[in-house]
Amino acid sequence: MRDKYRMVFSGSGGQGIITAAVIISEAAVLYENLNAVQTQSYGPAARGGSSRSDVIISKSEIFFPKVIQPNTLICLTQAAYNEFSGIVRPGGILITDSKYVSIEKKVDADQIEIPIYDTVKKEIGNPVVFNICLLGVIIKIKQIVKKESIIKVMEQRIPAGFLNMNIDAIELGMSMTSAIKNEI
Amino acid sequence: MRDKYRMVFSGSGGQGIITAAVIISEAAVLYENLNAVQTQSYGPAARGGSSRSDVIISKSEIFFPKVIQPNTLICLTQAAYNEFSGIVRPGGILITDSKYVSIEKKVDADQIEIPIYDTVKKEIGNPVVFNICLLGVIIKIKQIVKKESIIKVMEQRIPAGFLNMNIDAIELGMSMTSAIKNEI
Repeated sequence: MRDKYRMVFSGSGGQGIITAAVIISEAAVLYENLNAVQTQSYGPAARGGSSRSDVIISKSEIFFPKVIQPNTLICLTQAAYNEFSGIVRPGGILITDSKYVSIEKKVDADQIEIPIYDTVKKEIGNPVVFNICLLGVIIKIKQIVKKESIIKVMEQRIPAGFLNMNIDAIELGMSMTSAIKNEI
Repeated sequence: MRDKYRMVFSGSGGQGIITAAVIISEAAVLYENLNAVQTQSYGPAARGGSSRSDVIISKSEIFFPKVIQPNTLICLTQAAYNEFSGIVRPGGILITDSKYVSIEKKVDADQIEIPIYDTVKKEIGNPVVFNICLLGVIIKIKQIVKKESIIKVMEQRIPAGFLNMNIDAIELGMSMTSAIKNEI
């Protein structure tokens, strides 16, 4: 990993974006000896339906917690895509869910359109783990944190009876895509 | 409310601090037409056990999301109290839970020591709503957001079967304390 890795998760309230951002941040800090800052900014945009969570994971101290140009941008609704797609860092990665977003713009980034929601629905049957499957996609594409670190965080946060479904979701996400090797 | 209200929630991972910070932020934005930024910073401190979540609620745009001196500081473990008590804004409010924290320092703030955990355990029986009861304490002491706004957020986030217990918890928190009228 480069010194700093910046992510923006965007979508709507019920998609578990904040939880996904918190889990990947905790995994980085608690089990990979990195620093992390994770921010939700709510303004007029939130009332219109888009929510956004910024994550910075870094080997060194982080002085400014907001992300201007994310290395990886995730857009889980059309509104979020329309609002945020332009901010992705040139050469970065833009991940969208094909159920929710139609790609309409050219951006200087690897656009990864992937049916996370539909695959979770089909393979696991319970869309509640949509956000965890997304984390599997993210860590497979860029190895920001290890799967094992995510699972350790989930063991602390998720009731025991639901842990296996969450582990299945992360592995499903990892099986849906392949790594991107460019350095951004 | 003054133009900006700054809070820091501190404690350990399992106490629901992040969820409490997210709920009060969403209540402010979605139902009270305010702006909010909510940040978790994780560094070496997080590995030692203390976690911290910063919230700024404001009538105007928020440019810098970190809180330097909170108007209200909440410390839910002794370690968090030892680390953070000095940052409370002069004239501000310091809330501690009497089960977890022994007050040892003088600070230029109203120190409110309150048995949230023990009261939740006794009156509701389920400590999972400890963080929601804390929100009741906070909004009674300073009317940052209305109870009704918190409940509307919970209706979106909490499974229907658990909503009444959470409403009981917020009302219990409000019944445990009284308003502080100073302007800080």
